[in-house]
Amino acid sequence: MSDRDAVVEREREVWEKLRGLTSAGDGQGLQTLLESLEASETVRAIFRLGADDQRNLVSLLSPGPAADLLEDLPEAHAVDLIERQEIGHAADIVEAFSSDQGADLLSEMDSDDAEAILGEMIPEIAGEVRELISYSTDVAGGLMEIEHYAYPKAATASDFLGDLRQRRKERAELPQRLLLIDVRGRPVGAVEIADILLADDDTRLSSLSRPVSSVLATASLDELDDYFDRHETLGAPVVDDNGRLVGRVRRRALYDAIADRDQDDYLKLQGIVGGEELRAMPVLTRSRRRLSWLSINIVLNIIAASVIAFFQDTVSAVIALAVFLPIVSDMSGCSGNQAVAVSMRELTLGIVQPRDALRVWWQEVSVGLLNGLALGLLLSIATFLWQGNPLLGAVVGLALALNTIIAVSIGGTVPLLLKRWHADPAVASGPVLTTITDMCGFFLVLGLATLALPWLI
Amino acid sequence: MSDRDAVVEREREVWEKLRGLTSAGDGQGLQTLLESLEASETVRAIFRLGADDQRNLVSLLSPGPAADLLEDLPEAHAVDLIERQEIGHAADIVEAFSSDQGADLLSEMDSDDAEAILGEMIPEIAGEVRELISYSTDVAGGLMEIEHYAYPKAATASDFLGDLRQRRKERAELPQRLLLIDVRGRPVGAVEIADILLADDDTRLSSLSRPVSSVLATASLDELDDYFDRHETLGAPVVDDNGRLVGRVRRRALYDAIADRDQDDYLKLQGIVGGEELRAMPVLTRSRRRLSWLSINIVLNIIAASVIAFFQDTVSAVIALAVFLPIVSDMSGCSGNQAVAVSMRELTLGIVQPRDALRVWWQEVSVGLLNGLALGLLLSIATFLWQGNPLLGAVVGLALALNTIIAVSIGGTVPLLLKRWHADPAVASGPVLTTITDMCGFFLVLGLATLALPWLI
Repeated sequence: MSDRDAVVEREREVWEKLRGLTSAGDGQGLQTLLESLEASETVRAIFRLGADDQRNLVSLLSPGPAADLLEDLPEAHAVDLIERQEIGHAADIVEAFSSDQGADLLSEMDSDDAEAILGEMIPEIAGEVRELISYSTDVAGGLMEIEHYAYPKAATASDFLGDLRQRRKERAELPQRLLLIDVRGRPVGAVEIADILLADDDTRLSSLSRPVSSVLATASLDELDDYFDRHETLGAPVVDDNGRLVGRVRRRALYDAIADRDQDDYLKLQGIVGGEELRAMPVLTRSRRRLSWLSINIVLNIIAASVIAFFQDTVSAVIALAVFLPIVSDMSGCSGNQAVAVSMRELTLGIVQPRDALRVWWQEVSVGLLNGLALGLLLSIATFLWQGNPLLGAVVGLALALNTIIAVSIGGTVPLLLKRWHADPAVASGPVLTTITDMCGFFLVLGLATLALPWLI
Repeated sequence: MSDRDAVVEREREVWEKLRGLTSAGDGQGLQTLLESLEASETVRAIFRLGADDQRNLVSLLSPGPAADLLEDLPEAHAVDLIERQEIGHAADIVEAFSSDQGADLLSEMDSDDAEAILGEMIPEIAGEVRELISYSTDVAGGLMEIEHYAYPKAATASDFLGDLRQRRKERAELPQRLLLIDVRGRPVGAVEIADILLADDDTRLSSLSRPVSSVLATASLDELDDYFDRHETLGAPVVDDNGRLVGRVRRRALYDAIADRDQDDYLKLQGIVGGEELRAMPVLTRSRRRLSWLSINIVLNIIAASVIAFFQDTVSAVIALAVFLPIVSDMSGCSGNQAVAVSMRELTLGIVQPRDALRVWWQEVSVGLLNGLALGLLLSIATFLWQGNPLLGAVVGLALALNTIIAVSIGGTVPLLLKRWHADPAVASGPVLTTITDMCGFFLVLGLATLALPWLI
């Protein structure tokens, strides 16, 4: 049996076992099996189960293992599975997540479902989660969890040790460092656990304290990234406007949020808007979401192509022009998209900002000039070889060269301008670029051909 | 002064100060200024300096601050700046990076430059770096650093404390946990610092030991991600084929590598191949790299458009068809790209694998059918309103509907098939999709029009 067959065979086995245990209602067996699987195996096996089997499987698991499983699935899918659980079980599962993850899940739900689940949760946890939901998911407040190790600045090493013993019994995660707070709850320092190790029990923690910097609950993902770049720590303390400690953002939560944002940008650039699409979603949902984007594009496309209609006489005089219109449109799109990609990348890196549009435009023009010349020359030669008419070659080559310059100018600057106007560059750059470069391209090919018409026929 | 003006003003000030201190040769002043800046401010200010000023600035900094600065810049740019330093200074700077980062930088350089720098480095560090360079950058070995806290399993808590005191004097980073190794150097357990805190000095570390899992030096990024998903720790121990501890991968190094890979995929999909492009690079380099991709595309485009040439008689009989060719080509590209995006996303999530191509195709056809009907109907109506000919509307609408189904079929499956054939889906999906859907689209519009020709004129 080849390696690939063995993998396929193993996947089939896992899937059959999951299905068998689910039909048999064997929650314990499911938990044991799931614990033995890699995250990637789990995800694939779950997605192969029918929707009802998936729901039943989750209903058979205890809250902890159910949360572990759902954490491995794409968020939209995890939310769907929780919403379809019996309400008490759904609340227990949400409680089993850390407070930030619970808040993320609930904020993705219908507000009625979320309210119902919150109503079933332990009031204290529900209160924390409610507070977290109030933050947007792209700021520190939206990523933070409430849980943290913080002590009054008068505490001694042995106070901490006592607390640590207690927490260890409760199997809480062990800290890497702890925070000292003043009477108003503001962080005043951090103590590395390794430093406590080298100190006596009656040492005041404040004597081991190192300066600590916090992030505001309103800090952006980029600000958090800067923070973790400067501090080699698993968590960033989060403070409110009054400087009071309100939570902690884990490094992992930040990286997940950044990866989601980048992925979201990528999907939007490719025309998947209105949220992530997984093929396990209902066909109508997938179709409707994709269509919302396509229908705007077809209108823009018809508008752009209407330029051609104004030049019908020229096209009918030189039918070969019909061949070049899609070439110029496609190639300008390619050149423009390259410029969009570099601008999006430089925006992410923070190298350019909206106000740099003029400089970016100039840097694009220089590349557009070279590439336009090269592509135009190539198309001229191909045209001459095909039609034997050097002037027709010159016309389409010149049109492509000029339109390449236009395309990179628009592609390079539009993401910056959209950002300045507070529009989303990932969603709008593509359609704006295509529409304008298509119109210009058709106008250039057909306009130049009209001027040269007497010599073309 | 508005907020934006204030920011612009501050940026100009920073830039002028940097330039002033650089011309004055004031290394200490530069270090103080750079320490006071956010990473994003630094990056923008550096990119505004001329190439010579940038080189001089780095030459004025001590190795440590120089490494801190270069770490904030995109890698390609950092490498360039190091290569342009005097050789001894370049070696000192590389030494100031952690071993994995140093290896990354050197592996991006011309091999002559890298050898020269290695020759100037402390032989021990150079040896470590050489070993790291031998690993590919997308496996654990390529991301790991040599530095780690590991002790023989017979060691006691006080052995560790002695070592910790020593290392703290050397300002080494404090550990969160330490590893126990057997006589052959294989990791046999991990001890949490917090557990040592609760133990006596003469406690054997092995009595506090918890099971530890390691990753192989050949582990992929996805395997590392699974590891960090399961273990809340800053570093993963890396072992060689014999199970011996050889290094440690930091969580941050993994996330950076994943972000780079995703970003690279995105850039490749948009036609930026052969490495990252920054607009600070020389125009000729940028032009050449972009052109390498464009020139393949223009050939594919000409081949696709040549389908139109076979139907010149039909086009000349119904000139309006020239308007619809670019519309069908663009819209099919849009639909196909959506399917590519979902497949790339599901590949990343591990939900689909190359062998699922048939299932994916079927899930795309169902969406393609609905969206094809909707788009086709829209185009039919627009055509009818413009030309007053219902049959022409039916022809172009039907062509677009059919081609939408073809486009999503190809867009959904091509990334999987390319992956099966060990080609890079990010680079090749776009051109393959565009070429095939263009050919099919032109053939459908013009073929159907030819069949209906007697009733169209």
